[in-house]
Order: sequence, then C-alpha cells, then structure tokens
Amino acid sequence: MYFFFDDYSEGAHLQILEAFSRTNFQQERGYGMDSFTQEAERLIKEKIKKPKAAVHFVSSGTHANLVCISSLLKSYESVVAVDSGHANIHEAGAVEATGHKINVVPAVAGKMTPQAILEIVTTHTDEHMVKPKAVYISQSTEVGTVYLKSELQKLHEVCQQNELYLFIDGARIGHAVMSKNADFDLFDIANYCDLFSIGGTKNGALIGEAIVIVNPGLQENFRYHLRQRGALLAKARAVTVQFVELFKGNLYFENAKYANDMAQKLAVGIQECGYQFLSEPVVNQIFPIFPNGVIEKLQKNHGFYVWSKSSTPDHSVVRLVTSWATQDVAIEAFLADLKKFS
Amino acid sequence: MYFFFDDYSEGAHLQILEAFSRTNFQQERGYGMDSFTQEAERLIKEKIKKPKAAVHFVSSGTHANLVCISSLLKSYESVVAVDSGHANIHEAGAVEATGHKINVVPAVAGKMTPQAILEIVTTHTDEHMVKPKAVYISQSTEVGTVYLKSELQKLHEVCQQNELYLFIDGARIGHAVMSKNADFDLFDIANYCDLFSIGGTKNGALIGEAIVIVNPGLQENFRYHLRQRGALLAKARAVTVQFVELFKGNLYFENAKYANDMAQKLAVGIQECGYQFLSEPVVNQIFPIFPNGVIEKLQKNHGFYVWSKSSTPDHSVVRLVTSWATQDVAIEAFLADLKKFS
Amino acid sequence: MYFFFDDYSEGAHLQILEAFSRTNFQQERGYGMDSFTQEAERLIKEKIKKPKAAVHFVSSGTHANLVCISSLLKSYESVVAVDSGHANIHEAGAVEATGHKINVVPAVAGKMTPQAILEIVTTHTDEHMVKPKAVYISQSTEVGTVYLKSELQKLHEVCQQNELYLFIDGARIGHAVMSKNADFDLFDIANYCDLFSIGGTKNGALIGEAIVIVNPGLQENFRYHLRQRGALLAKARAVTVQFVELFKGNLYFENAKYANDMAQKLAVGIQECGYQFLSEPVVNQIFPIFPNGVIEKLQKNHGFYVWSKSSTPDHSVVRLVTSWATQDVAIEAFLADLKKFS
Amino acid sequence: MYFFFDDYSEGAHLQILEAFSRTNFQQERGYGMDSFTQEAERLIKEKIKKPKAAVHFVSSGTHANLVCISSLLKSYESVVAVDSGHANIHEAGAVEATGHKINVVPAVAGKMTPQAILEIVTTHTDEHMVKPKAVYISQSTEVGTVYLKSELQKLHEVCQQNELYLFIDGARIGHAVMSKNADFDLFDIANYCDLFSIGGTKNGALIGEAIVIVNPGLQENFRYHLRQRGALLAKARAVTVQFVELFKGNLYFENAKYANDMAQKLAVGIQECGYQFLSEPVVNQIFPIFPNGVIEKLQKNHGFYVWSKSSTPDHSVVRLVTSWATQDVAIEAFLADLKKFS
Repeated sequence: MYFFFDDYSEGAHLQILEAFSRTNFQQERGYGMDSFTQEAERLIKEKIKKPKAAVHFVSSGTHANLVCISSLLKSYESVVAVDSGHANIHEAGAVEATGHKINVVPAVAGKMTPQAILEIVTTHTDEHMVKPKAVYISQSTEVGTVYLKSELQKLHEVCQQNELYLFIDGARIGHAVMSKNADFDLFDIANYCDLFSIGGTKNGALIGEAIVIVNPGLQENFRYHLRQRGALLAKARAVTVQFVELFKGNLYFENAKYANDMAQKLAVGIQECGYQFLSEPVVNQIFPIFPNGVIEKLQKNHGFYVWSKSSTPDHSVVRLVTSWATQDVAIEAFLADLKKFS
Repeated sequence: MYFFFDDYSEGAHLQILEAFSRTNFQQERGYGMDSFTQEAERLIKEKIKKPKAAVHFVSSGTHANLVCISSLLKSYESVVAVDSGHANIHEAGAVEATGHKINVVPAVAGKMTPQAILEIVTTHTDEHMVKPKAVYISQSTEVGTVYLKSELQKLHEVCQQNELYLFIDGARIGHAVMSKNADFDLFDIANYCDLFSIGGTKNGALIGEAIVIVNPGLQENFRYHLRQRGALLAKARAVTVQFVELFKGNLYFENAKYANDMAQKLAVGIQECGYQFLSEPVVNQIFPIFPNGVIEKLQKNHGFYVWSKSSTPDHSVVRLVTSWATQDVAIEAFLADLKKFS
Repeated sequence: MYFFFDDYSEGAHLQILEAFSRTNFQQERGYGMDSFTQEAERLIKEKIKKPKAAVHFVSSGTHANLVCISSLLKSYESVVAVDSGHANIHEAGAVEATGHKINVVPAVAGKMTPQAILEIVTTHTDEHMVKPKAVYISQSTEVGTVYLKSELQKLHEVCQQNELYLFIDGARIGHAVMSKNADFDLFDIANYCDLFSIGGTKNGALIGEAIVIVNPGLQENFRYHLRQRGALLAKARAVTVQFVELFKGNLYFENAKYANDMAQKLAVGIQECGYQFLSEPVVNQIFPIFPNGVIEKLQKNHGFYVWSKSSTPDHSVVRLVTSWATQDVAIEAFLADLKKFS
Repeated sequence: MYFFFDDYSEGAHLQILEAFSRTNFQQERGYGMDSFTQEAERLIKEKIKKPKAAVHFVSSGTHANLVCISSLLKSYESVVAVDSGHANIHEAGAVEATGHKINVVPAVAGKMTPQAILEIVTTHTDEHMVKPKAVYISQSTEVGTVYLKSELQKLHEVCQQNELYLFIDGARIGHAVMSKNADFDLFDIANYCDLFSIGGTKNGALIGEAIVIVNPGLQENFRYHLRQRGALLAKARAVTVQFVELFKGNLYFENAKYANDMAQKLAVGIQECGYQFLSEPVVNQIFPIFPNGVIEKLQKNHGFYVWSKSSTPDHSVVRLVTSWATQDVAIEAFLADLKKFS
C-alpha cells in the first residue's frame, strides 16, 4: 500500500542524511549558538533578500505557531484566523493555552479576506471585547489553495492600516511558492508580512521549521519566548544542519516542486476519470470528490483520508497528499485502480 | 580546541544515523502512530518491566518538563522544586507560563530532601496559598550528584503519604544509572515515581526525550497535553527511530557509561594534580575547583564553563562535561595542560 | 433624562442599605467565614431545595463566569458557548486568559441548541482538537429571551449524555424566573445544571453575585479557584449581607418582577405605536425596532443603546432595560415621546 | 469577645453608608463611566498632586495585585518580591496563574532591599532565565513595618537604573502614611513608584481598592486588563461613592490614624507588661511575643491569630490588628487580661 495520507510519511531527503553524517563529529556550542544555525540563518536571509531579518528554528509547526502568535500579543490582544485555520482548529487550543482568543472568521476557499479582517476590527472597539492585534494565515492553506501576490499585498495593507501584525504559517510555503499559479517568491512573502515560518517537516526535512521575523520591532527577546515554551533546542544543529542543506542550493524548492508535480499527475489522471475537485489542484494537497463506493474500494490499496462530506450525500471529498518522496509507481497504481473502480 | 561545555556538542551516535538511513523510505503514519514509536515504547516498557506504563516522545527536555508538570496540576496546584532545579531556574519560567507556582526549597548537594517537602506541605494548608501537588527532581542533578535508591524510595514514600506526584527529570538519567555509586536501575526509577523522562539529546541521540508515565491514573488524555503545547511531532519517527536504537540493546547505557568513564579519567587526573571538587565526581558532569589563574590559561585551549564562585576568592568552580563522543585525546590534552599550569 | 441603558444605573434597594446600617458594627471573621455568608448560603440552598449545594459569593458577573468556567476544565478542555454569549464576546477574552478555548456555535434567538452541542461533540474527537467539557448558557439571554423548562431539561440531558458540565450564567436569572412565560423556578434551574450564578448587581444589590454549585463533584477546593483569581473577598459581608436581604423573603423575585412589569408597560406602549421587536419582550430587556429618525429624537430625552442594525437599512434595533428602580414617570415620558415622534 | 483578627471585621465608616443612601437613586452610567468614579479619580489625583495619573477601582486587594502585576509584564518577564510578600505567599498563586514567575528574595524586617533587587538583576542575564521587569513591595508590610522615604527613594532609583517597574501594594498604605515614624505622604509614594494601590477594604470602606498609575507609559489600555480579569465593575459606584467620601476630606487618613493610635495604646500596655515585639509597633498591625500559656488564656476572651513561632520554644509571636472601628473597651479588656495572666 502506498500512502497519500500526508507529506511526513517518510524520513528525510538523502542529502540531509548525508549532511548529518558529514557534520556529525564537528563540535559546536548549544542552544542555537552553533555554526550551522548561523549558516542556515544567513542562507535564508539571503534567499529572501532581508539582511535584517531574524531567523530561529524549532521542531514543530504547532510550536512555531504558538510561539509566534503569543509573542505578538499583550494579554488582552487577540489573533484573527479563518475557521479552517490550523492554529484555530487542529492544534488543541494551543493559542488559547497561551491566554489569547482567536477571532474566528469564515474562510473563502480556505483563505482570509480583507473584509473579514475589517469586520473584526470595526466590531472590536472597546475594552469589553478583546483587542485584535494579529492576523494568522497559512500559505498554502489547509485546503490546498494559495494566496496570490495581490491577495497577500492587500491583506498586508489592511493589516498595516489597522495596526495588526500579519503572521504567515508556512508549514507548506515551499509548495505555495512552487504552485503552478504562483506569481510570488519567498521575497514577496517576506515583504507582505511581519513574520512567517518555513516548514521543513513536510518538505524533505527529518524535523524542523524556521521562523523568520522580518519586522525588526518584533525581534528583540524572541529567544525568551522560545525558551519559555520549550522550543529552544539544546542541539539546534539537529534542525539547522538540515536547513543549511535545504537552502544552500535550491533543494527546498526542488522538493516542493517535485511534490507538486506528483500531485498534478494525480490530478490530471483523476480529471481524466471525470471527477471534480473541492478546489483547483495547485499544490501537493488535492481534494477530489469521489463516490463513496469508489472511496471504499480505493482505501483497500491506497492510504488517504476522507476529508469531508460532499454536497451530494453519496459522494465525499478526499485528501490526497504527495511529497518529495512520492514514487511514480504509487501514482500509477492509484490511477489504475481509480479507472478500474469508476 | 576540545569541548567540555556540555554533552550535546556533537551530532548522534553512528548507530542512530545508520538507523535513519535504513528506515528512511519506510512509509509510516504521522503523529506517533508509526511502528517506530510503538517499538520504542515497547522496548522502554520492557526495560523498566512496566507493561502498563505509557511512553511518549518529545523533542526537548524543557518541553518534557513543562508538559509533564502542567499535566499533573489543577490550576491552583503547585510543584515543589529545589532552588537549583532546571525547571525552576533555567527554563525561563516555563512552568509558571502554564499558570503554576513552583514552591522553591533549598537543595542539599543539588538534591531534594524529604524534610523540605514536608515543610512545604505543612505550611500550605488552606486556600490562601497554592496547594502543593507534585514534586520535581532531577536524576542526576544539576550539580552532578545522584539520588541513591534509598533516597528515591524515601522521597516517593513522603510524596505518597502526602498525595503528591513525583516527577523525575531524566535528561541525564542514563548517567545516573551508570554512575559508579548507583545502587538502582531504570526499574527502580520507575518504581519510585509517578512519571519520569529519559533524555536522548544528552546521551547520543540527535534529538529527543522519552516521557514514561508509570502511574496509570495519569495516562489518560496525555496526548492532548502534548498537542496543546506543540510537543506532538508530526514526524515522530525523527525521535523514535533513535530510541529504538538506544533501547533495542544496551546502547543507551553504554553511551552513558562511556561518558561517565571519560569523566572519571578527567577526575582522577585532576585529583592527582591536587584539586578538590564541589561534589564527588560520579557522573559525566564534574565540578573541580581551580585557581582563577589556572582557569584562565586552560580556557585558551579547552572549552568549558566557569560554574560558580568558590569559597576562596581566588578560586572558582568549573564544570566539565563529557559525553558518548568525548575523545581520549581531549582528556589527555586537558590533563597535560592542567599539570603544566599547576 | 431617564436611563434605559441598563439595570445597574442606581445604587441598591433600600432594604439592602438598611441592612448595611443594621449590621455594620457586628464583628465577623474575614474571607467568607462570617455569619452573613453562612446565612446567605443557607437561604439560597433552602430556596432551591438543594441542601448539598455549595454557594460562594463574588463581586462581578465576569468574575463569576471566569472562575466557574475555568474551574470545570483541564488545560486542554473547552467550553461551548453561543456567538452572542456574554462570556464569548463581551468579557475581553476572560475565559481564554485562563487558557481555554470557547467553541463558538450560532445562537437561535440568543439560545444554545442541543444540535449545536452535538455538532461540537461529534466533530471534536481526538487530541488534535480541544476536548469540549462544558456548556455555557445565559438565563435570561443577551437578547432578552428565556429558556423554557423543557429546553433546559433537554440541554441538560444532552450534556449529561456527553459528559459535559452545564453552567448557567444567571446575571439576570431573577428576571428569567419571573418572566411572563416562565414555566420553571430556581429549583428547576438547579435541577438542570451543574452550577449556576445568581446575579445581584442587576437586580437590586449594590454589588455581588452568588455562585451555586449543585454538582457535589465540583465543590471541592472551589475556594482555591476564587482565591487565585482575586475573587475571594476579605470583607465578604459586603456582598452577603445583601444576599441575606434578597433571599430571606422574596425581595430577589419581587425586584425582578417589578423590572419585568416595567418592561411590559414599555412593550405594550411600543406595540400600540405599531412597532415590532427583535424577540418577544418577556424580561427586563426589550429590543424594539425603530426608524432611525425616531431613535435620534428619542435619544435626546432618553438614555438607551442602539443594539444592532435591522433588516431594513432605515431601522435599527434598540435595547431598553428596566430595573427594580425604574420609575413610572420614565416609562410614561418615553412612550409619550415615542407617540409624538412616530 | 472583641476581635483583633484583622481590620475588616466590621462594615463601613458611617459616612460611607450615609453617602450610599444620599446618592442611591442618582442614575449613572455603568463600568466606571459614572460621575462618582470621575470625582474619586479627581480627588485622589489632587491628593497626590499628579494630574496626569490614571486611577481605577477594583473590589479586592488580590485583584488589584494580579491585574497590576500582569499588566506590567511580557510573557517571559517576572516580578521580584520578598518571601513574605502577600502576592507571593498568600494569594494562592494568583500571579503565576497569569503566567509569570515571582523571583523570591529574603525580606529584611518584611522589606525589600536594593541589594536583593541587584542580586536578581545580575544573575538573570540571558534567555535561559526569566527577565525581571518589576518589583512588588507592600507599604506597610506584612509584618507591620514601614519603608521610610529614603528607602522608597533608593528602591525606586535601583528600579529605574535597571529598567524595572516598581509597584507598591497599598492595602494598608493609609496606616503607613500615618505611622508614627512616617517621613512621607501619598505624594512621596506617588513619586517613588510607577503604580500603587490604595486600600479601602482595610481602612473603613465597605469594599474596594484604588489603583493609581503614575507612569503615563503604563496607562494605555489598562481597562482591557481590568475587563479581562473580571475586575471592571458594572456598578463601579459601589466602590467609588466610598472613595469620594474617603478622599473629599481627610477621612482616609483619619481612619488610619485612629487605627494606628489604637494599636499604640495596645503596644504601650503590652510593653508595660514587659513583653517584646517582633518589630517596632508603628502601624495598626503589631506583633508582640507572648508565652504560649498566656496566649492560650487570652484567646478565650479575645480574637487574634498566632502568627509564628518565636526564637524561644515556649513563646510565640501573635498578630493584633486594630482598625477605624476598634473600640477603647476592647483595648482595655485585652490589657486587663494580659496583666492578669502575666
């Protein structure tokens, strides 16, 4: 059985494993004061052309989200997120556990809209309500959609006009940058937000995420936030040796492109069988709509999640995820079965 | 220059790197539902002879501490710790950030005493004060001392009599078990506490700590705590492939013994030069007392921290840490210089 | 100008002021260990026929809400509330500041529905999401509606079947009990929930709310929660002398009935002028819909809030609140002006 | 039996009860937007000669402490307090429940020292520890001592040099100002701190404390903090009608002086019987040291607490508290019995 459950079913890109071996006995200082961390930070800053950015590294996406969001807010301040946002729904109340309310707004194709932000801002005007101070979005989103450059620009503009910080959860930001419609790169991402994360775990790293703080006003004492939340790693090299590999050349983007390409192959095959999608397939997560009977048969040979009900009761939306490690044979087997069962 | 700064200056034991390579393309489910995690849990439970224990894996020691401690406490309950305790002093208020007070008591040779626990219990008797509900200790301690079996037993007894949970921070538990005076093994540890951690980061793993919940009453819904604090790893195998290697044979204990042996070599050499120690050297952290002038000269060629002032103003306590990766040549070079400068 | 802004525009019922004078120099112990607190607790337990209930007293409704809700929840547990719920929207994130997420569901006429609870329960089934453990409702609601006995019974049933605690915010519970459609009394309230509050501030007290814990399993150590949140009053008599007066006879219910009757007078007059209401006027908060021009004129002589937009753009919903202290002359003046401006 | 348990055994000064009656039916806006609150703020600002201060009112001292302290701190910042400090030991972990560590230092005669602050500052220099940002002291202290003007000045200076906020818990600040050795007034208090509280509950008010924010940089959005912690009172007049009475003339200081004078009478009589004190009696809390046998007999007729053990095993320290309402007859009866039993 091949897995389309997620993009963290395998270990790490071989280049990363090789780097672990190559650097293994080089003695380094702890807690991020090592040369790999410095080099990873330098490479990322170079890639986004922001020499004054600050870069930190943590082990999980939820950790990146909770540290970043809580670092932005005074105790009475809140963060705006869409209902389907990972930090809102799939992190067990991690943000609230740091004391902050999430102002939940409806997503449009998985995305935050300027209107939704303005609605929250204009209805939260006195001390009887929380004070919105940040906006959380994911690029790409939970449903595999991607904010275009103009959309990011507009969100950023609305945030700046309303004194809100914009944080982009980039657990799958590589896949967004390499998506077929993308009209932006990491430099644009950095331009249109205050801070963002760069996911490693879902894009070929063994483990780890980078946090990039573009806004200089948010950089001071960030290591205190990391330390207090258990996110400052004694052996930071465990993450940063990987990020050096991912960013010293183009591996980060190549991994994402490969995953996207595999998803496109799947999508084309699925379309050829006559099926629709919840949203246009553009990244490494695609959401086709299949008859329930077909799903049942497919699940015997292929690993994937049923995502949600469809508008017609005998169909459901499924989620298929590809990765840097997805094999052609998995795609072919899936499509062959789909044809057979359709 | 060789480092005696800490035990996380290198990468990982080679057997672990090999295991990463060997298992890399095996597809597994996410969030700890993989076969490596199951196997690591099984091996640890077998090693401690506690088939009903629950085992979880996180990426850092502070994370293990804050998740474990906060999982034990109702909002108004507190944890007792010694003043020099890592969770009290060196984790940037991580426990308090989860809403809980630490009742701080004086350490005796780095260790908690039954008397100190009783003092807190007897003085905290009504709702104007927090309600002590847990005791936090480290084995081995921050100053390289080790609780003997009878000491653990007595602490556990006092905790049970006073309805307190006992949590053992085992960041360096392997070094404790393999210390030259140790009259206990991991089975005893498990017997004399409610939950404990097993540190990987400081004993040959690339990254990661195990949390062992011995008390069945504390096992329910623990994954919620992990998830909410950002500690549930999507790619859990990144940690658990390592713990399989460490515990499928005796690697975990061999690593610790090697580190302890290296520290003993250092200690013997230092004693031969006529120096005293803050406490008897028994694990991989030793605390010799040197003249300040000697320290200054040593620091030019050898990496280590000055730990604290000594009782005589022209001497200081330094901390020397060895690890699974410490090389003989480093020991020899250090001792040669020490002789030369003494 | 007369105020219909709220039901806390005046001081206290004169019987309460008299009680302060009468009892002023009686020496009592602090922190709720006084005879007035004991007597107030006894009277309330008698009124609700629950000899095993526990009763506590605090100074504000938000304080009652945040202490009660946080006392029910483990760190990863959440409370379900309707979008318009006071604790969700009008308490500046007080619940989240204690670390807990509110699962927000749509209100139907200001009320929680069993369906909404079930929807949350059935979609929150693993540790990636918070674990719903309590339901928060207000009786009467923010929009002046009242849960009937059968509705409370059904909500309670759904809560019990799903191991959820039911907490009723009774800031205006007197007005609910005395509403014209009410088919329940405080005994029924107590039967159909785990804990509830009884608002004094909005029903003739100078200040103060009672918290009634019906469920014996929730009573232990509640004073710790109060103490920790700053809610345990050194001079508890400041609140409990008042509650003795409110509950030794029927003053609490008489105050509420008087306020409701005044609201009915207003409502009848408004209806006679041909206006509609957002919801049927049954308690001391009524929500008529007026043309914007009429509102503007009324506001010159009468104090009230515009509540929300109406479905027609040239009309708005206003909120008129009466109290134990509302004078006939205020009602008459308002209705006279309304007639004149209509 | 007469009570020397505390200074909140009675209701309120009669002038306050009269003010409640006089103002009872004056209609006012809620949540502190009423004319009494404005007038109370104006009077206090006038008294301290700080026209740019901001003044808020809450119902309890613990509430004032937790709101003030948490308002000063970022999540990783801490407050320094002496071991015997009320916020440290007697508020059930209220500060920690807002997420912040208290750096505990030893008290000298109940007081914080500049040396203790410097010791904390110099040992907390990196992100592995919390970042001290505020200092909490009480004036008068838990053991009835008073900071002299020069002591306040020095503490303030050390705080400013180290970028620490200084918060003075003034639950008994009136008694401090009127103590026999006092060389300062409220103006001096305001000069030597960033914010402080003025206790009403323990000095003749029925209930309530004022919070005075002298430092303009700390004033913004303070009402959000109050709201979020349940401290913003809907019927603020319940507190502020009282503070108008206390500060429109000298009632606040007269009450304190009366209480202090009563304590002096007690102290003189006790000294005449040949007993010592834990500290010089200067405010309304005095701590004589009696033989245990004498204490036992006294407790049959007089209400007071045994405070702590004495240095000799057959003696104990007791706490005797007087108030604005203490009667001469109570003093006389106590001293007569003391003579008899001595």
